[in-house]
Amino acid sequence: MSHLAAPGHGVTAPVIALEDLLGFCSDALKIVGLSDADALIGAQVLATTDAWGIFTHGSKILDGYLRRLRAGGLKADGRPRVIAEGGAWGLVDGGSALGMVTSVFAMELAIAKARQQGIAYVGVNNSSHFGAAGYYTWLAAREGLIGISMANDHPSVAAPGSRGAITGSNPISYAVPAKRHRPMFLDISIATVAGGKVYAARERGELIPDGWLIDSDGRPTNDATLYPGSSTLTPAAAHKGFGIALLIETLSGVITGAGVTWGIRNWLADDQSIATDHGAAFLAVDCDTISGSGDFTARVDALIDEIHAAPPAVATERLLVPGELEWLRYERAMSEGLSLPPDVMRSLRAAGAFVGLDVDSLFH
Amino acid sequence: MSHLAAPGHGVTAPVIALEDLLGFCSDALKIVGLSDADALIGAQVLATTDAWGIFTHGSKILDGYLRRLRAGGLKADGRPRVIAEGGAWGLVDGGSALGMVTSVFAMELAIAKARQQGIAYVGVNNSSHFGAAGYYTWLAAREGLIGISMANDHPSVAAPGSRGAITGSNPISYAVPAKRHRPMFLDISIATVAGGKVYAARERGELIPDGWLIDSDGRPTNDATLYPGSSTLTPAAAHKGFGIALLIETLSGVITGAGVTWGIRNWLADDQSIATDHGAAFLAVDCDTISGSGDFTARVDALIDEIHAAPPAVATERLLVPGELEWLRYERAMSEGLSLPPDVMRSLRAAGAFVGLDVDSLFH
Repeated sequence: MSHLAAPGHGVTAPVIALEDLLGFCSDALKIVGLSDADALIGAQVLATTDAWGIFTHGSKILDGYLRRLRAGGLKADGRPRVIAEGGAWGLVDGGSALGMVTSVFAMELAIAKARQQGIAYVGVNNSSHFGAAGYYTWLAAREGLIGISMANDHPSVAAPGSRGAITGSNPISYAVPAKRHRPMFLDISIATVAGGKVYAARERGELIPDGWLIDSDGRPTNDATLYPGSSTLTPAAAHKGFGIALLIETLSGVITGAGVTWGIRNWLADDQSIATDHGAAFLAVDCDTISGSGDFTARVDALIDEIHAAPPAVATERLLVPGELEWLRYERAMSEGLSLPPDVMRSLRAAGAFVGLDVDSLFH
Repeated sequence: MSHLAAPGHGVTAPVIALEDLLGFCSDALKIVGLSDADALIGAQVLATTDAWGIFTHGSKILDGYLRRLRAGGLKADGRPRVIAEGGAWGLVDGGSALGMVTSVFAMELAIAKARQQGIAYVGVNNSSHFGAAGYYTWLAAREGLIGISMANDHPSVAAPGSRGAITGSNPISYAVPAKRHRPMFLDISIATVAGGKVYAARERGELIPDGWLIDSDGRPTNDATLYPGSSTLTPAAAHKGFGIALLIETLSGVITGAGVTWGIRNWLADDQSIATDHGAAFLAVDCDTISGSGDFTARVDALIDEIHAAPPAVATERLLVPGELEWLRYERAMSEGLSLPPDVMRSLRAAGAFVGLDVDSLFH
């Protein structure tokens, strides 16, 4: 590793080329038994997620996948398959394959059906943690369709009036293709903030703002040291986030026959040899066909331009469209490579040690 | 009007039977030119919304519709029509008819197509304010399908970093049918709180909590007296609410060719003789067909039972499922009739005066 000094920025962190990060993830997945094709899919999702700057769901989680693949809770040779379908819908049994493999399969099916029918829904059961929901919606947007994806998870988020967790953090993403601009792109959980923000405050010895956390009696607390053992994350905007969480739970788990709430295992903390039974849902909308006029993406551009031109608040340079920061980071990562946060580096080294690969030599 | 004393509750407000409220709304709509069938649809939406206790979007807004219908900005003889369609999608020109008429038409089309294809999307342009988004999703749930509805609107809600309004309050609703239980049912806007809550605080001379409002510089404010002239509502959960608002804008307005953001007129404040050009979107999902097993609604019941059984926070009796309060109010309204808040009463009297009907004689 060398530490290069960039002009005006002092000593910089070591950098890895995106293709090297992708290669490392892919090699590691192959070592635990994935086919070349499946390993590439998993690696593409993780490296792209890091490129967007969503480090909580990028290569940091490779280590957990490797251990679960080796322990058998994820099947290295698992194959997703369509178990039922109709004109604009499909139901996929994930076969306990890597969640990325099943999710790409499901979104590609949704895209193909939406091209025929205008919109399509593909539900998934017997899957696992699928990483960043946004990767799959981007697949649709790259093909000129609107993509929507979501998944349920082991409960970690409270409901209004609850004492503990009721739903998972139930991620939801959309991507809307534009013409001159990158897609409008959102990838959020239904919690007020991610647990990682609470950990960070705890490490800094700071109180957390109102509204992030409830204690074990269900009372609001500002004490980050209670997390996660004696406190629970709150749902974003209270009943609104909880309500959306239950729609995601319905479309991902209830309708698909996957696990629901506590029926889903914690993919990191629970027995690594037992399938987690996550559900997920993928929707694609053929916006060009439906809009008919052929100017859908130009209309998206106009909306983005309008937001960019809107008067910003004092001390704000300009307004950002959902996904804009992620695309800026992505393009920078493509041209300059990535420097990864310390927690990601630690996890990548652990992953490398687990399969006998050296990650540090890939950083410059 | 008589004021009956209920045991233990002191003097009660006068009550109107739900069917009398429906009849009043229907009669008023017929006087300004709607057909019997269209007037009934409009009245059903308004009366049902009041029965749910969503008084901001119930018969209170009849007066505005009547004036717009008479001025020509809504067409009393307007007819929604399908202008393009495919297997699982349709595009409807609302013909500037009453938003409820077009919305019921569109959701019924979505339901019919979803029964064939599993899921369907129907987009609407040239519509107007459609009242409570939840009425249309309930239509789907009554037929055993999941319903999702949404609409865009004249901007009234800020974005993170904005100085003023960027999107409408862009309502979204879903209804998920259950078996023993009433449907899970959510009907929300993407604003942190409704403007009505700010007005109420202003009337009581109180400061509003952090996070509801920004002033005309885009700074957070607790001063309710600034609303609405010199302040703007915030999006729920900041970038999350704003992000969802833009998905709603896309599915309701961008894809349909309807007005987008400032291209939509304010249905109450702007010239009543000019169409508002709202867009809307309606989705239906045939959950029984997709789930296959025939136990979809039983699985929804199990999820609801699980939430009901979850340990509540201190000082909370039990957890509520989305829509549960609305259904409790609805059943009470069906059996006991409704008492309406003072602002609704004022508006109903104005509506009655406008068309020559007496509403007070219907209260007991």
